Amino acid sequence: MQTITDYQNSIAEHFNSLDVQKEPANLYSPIQYILNIGGKRIRPMLTVMVADIFNCAIEKALPAATAVEVFHNFSLIHDDIMDEAPLRRGHQTVHEKWDLNTGILSGDAMLILAYQFFENYEPKIFRQLAKLFSKTALEVCEGQQYDVDFEIREDVTVPEYLKMIEYKTAVLVGAAMKMGAIVAEANEEDANLVYDFGLNLGIAFQLQDDYLDAFGDPETFGKQVGGDIIENKKTYLYLMAMQNAEEDIQRQLQYLFSLKPNDSSEKVELVKNIFRNSRADEMTKLAIREYTDKAMKTLEAIQVAEDKKKVLRAFGENLMNRNV
Amino acid sequence: MQTITDYQNSIAEHFNSLDVQKEPANLYSPIQYILNIGGKRIRPMLTVMVADIFNCAIEKALPAATAVEVFHNFSLIHDDIMDEAPLRRGHQTVHEKWDLNTGILSGDAMLILAYQFFENYEPKIFRQLAKLFSKTALEVCEGQQYDVDFEIREDVTVPEYLKMIEYKTAVLVGAAMKMGAIVAEANEEDANLVYDFGLNLGIAFQLQDDYLDAFGDPETFGKQVGGDIIENKKTYLYLMAMQNAEEDIQRQLQYLFSLKPNDSSEKVELVKNIFRNSRADEMTKLAIREYTDKAMKTLEAIQVAEDKKKVLRAFGENLMNRNV
Repeated sequence: MQTITDYQNSIAEHFNSLDVQKEPANLYSPIQYILNIGGKRIRPMLTVMVADIFNCAIEKALPAATAVEVFHNFSLIHDDIMDEAPLRRGHQTVHEKWDLNTGILSGDAMLILAYQFFENYEPKIFRQLAKLFSKTALEVCEGQQYDVDFEIREDVTVPEYLKMIEYKTAVLVGAAMKMGAIVAEANEEDANLVYDFGLNLGIAFQLQDDYLDAFGDPETFGKQVGGDIIENKKTYLYLMAMQNAEEDIQRQLQYLFSLKPNDSSEKVELVKNIFRNSRADEMTKLAIREYTDKAMKTLEAIQVAEDKKKVLRAFGENLMNRNV
Repeated sequence: MQTITDYQNSIAEHFNSLDVQKEPANLYSPIQYILNIGGKRIRPMLTVMVADIFNCAIEKALPAATAVEVFHNFSLIHDDIMDEAPLRRGHQTVHEKWDLNTGILSGDAMLILAYQFFENYEPKIFRQLAKLFSKTALEVCEGQQYDVDFEIREDVTVPEYLKMIEYKTAVLVGAAMKMGAIVAEANEEDANLVYDFGLNLGIAFQLQDDYLDAFGDPETFGKQVGGDIIENKKTYLYLMAMQNAEEDIQRQLQYLFSLKPNDSSEKVELVKNIFRNSRADEMTKLAIREYTDKAMKTLEAIQVAEDKKKVLRAFGENLMNRNV
């Protein structure tokens, strides 16, 4: 049985040697560039991990794992255009280093390239992978659209928000894992359970991201603490506070979320106080716990030996034990 | 045996009833919009025509035909962004009617939707269709990139130009036709011959577009005559003139292609004279004839009854007899 570090090493090695460069250079160089600047490669790691759990050689899962990571990076290129983001993983974004048109066209080519990696599989597996991939990719687009829509809406409900993060983030985690099961030809029930595990863990992870943005340790949280508050992002914390605070506090919060002061430190503190006083912090932690438990519970039903489940459980706990 | 008009009617009816609208509306409305504003639907018509020729029910070919047309419209949305085009088929372009981000994201969703239409086929056919589709879609992206690259290059060769129009335009015509053969489970040799027919006809069509842009009848040519000259587009006519004119005429042509006068009528006349005097017009007509002949010759080898080939031949002649 391999450890998470083993999987990570296999994936790192694979992506270090991945060469997509060909002519025309202006189309493929940005693709090589974004794939080279790295990232944590969590999704492809999950694909090979699940394949291994279902007794499939890691090498056989690599094309599907690559498709997932190539798709993820495609979505980053196009999202960065939409967000006008100058930086990604500490490097210039593609549209910034090249230009808008290059970002659009190289992104398009990456989406197609992702599908091509499935051509390594025979028809039955190919069709299953491509079908899951299309469904997931479309949901990711829908999630991105909901995210854009919600920016200008004041009446977003908690279920709507949960659906948005499910589509934008969690479905790809579930799909990455299920692809490992498909490649390993696991039975359909197990493949679906693995999907649900990834989906619920993905939702928990995103909710934790919302929580840590306000209450994380600046030393260990990867991003700027308070970033969502500064950007007036309506996260789960915000929705919980709006749902539970007294009416005058709701108005205060709405007012604070209409401001973009040059020095935002006081705004961040005021908002965090509202989150605490309305117990939005606790309720967010509760939701994180619930989705994590739901994920872990799914593991029970999967028909594999206990020692194999351990790896999935360890991954889940590892992922969720970022200083909450 | 059905006529071209029959195929056109089947396709028109199919697209009139095609409903892709769902939630989130801001993602799917632009897709429904661009599919509704029409176009000639040549590519999907070719798919059902070829399927019928190989004795396959037209209904069975409709999902593949739809995939091709959805992809074509995806490429129009993203190309129109890159070209900053305000109008498409006399209607506002998607990024103009909505905004840049909507154009990018709805386009992405369309590319994925195109793949989903192949899910109507069983694994073996699905894999063949999706594989041909990915190869073709990637070539279309490469063709678009070459087109962008060539705008700022002064040393584009004739073979490079021919490869660009092959990728940007002709491969999708070939693929649309080959998909009809795949769906009909024609033998591989026939399927490849049908592809070559479409490919060569596609190149001939694009070269004819270059020719008609300068020498077409303003009454019947769909676009503004002289448009390429006004835009300083290095078409086949331009490359031929640069290859064959005396050096001082080459310099004159290059100079004219560095100008964008407010009133371009004199520039257009001067350039057309150079095209005529250098016999670029005749050489372009010759190339059109050669590619058309090559296409027609491919028909001979296809293993179907003569009356079925007639439809393909009629289509080819019909397409190429736009007042050259």
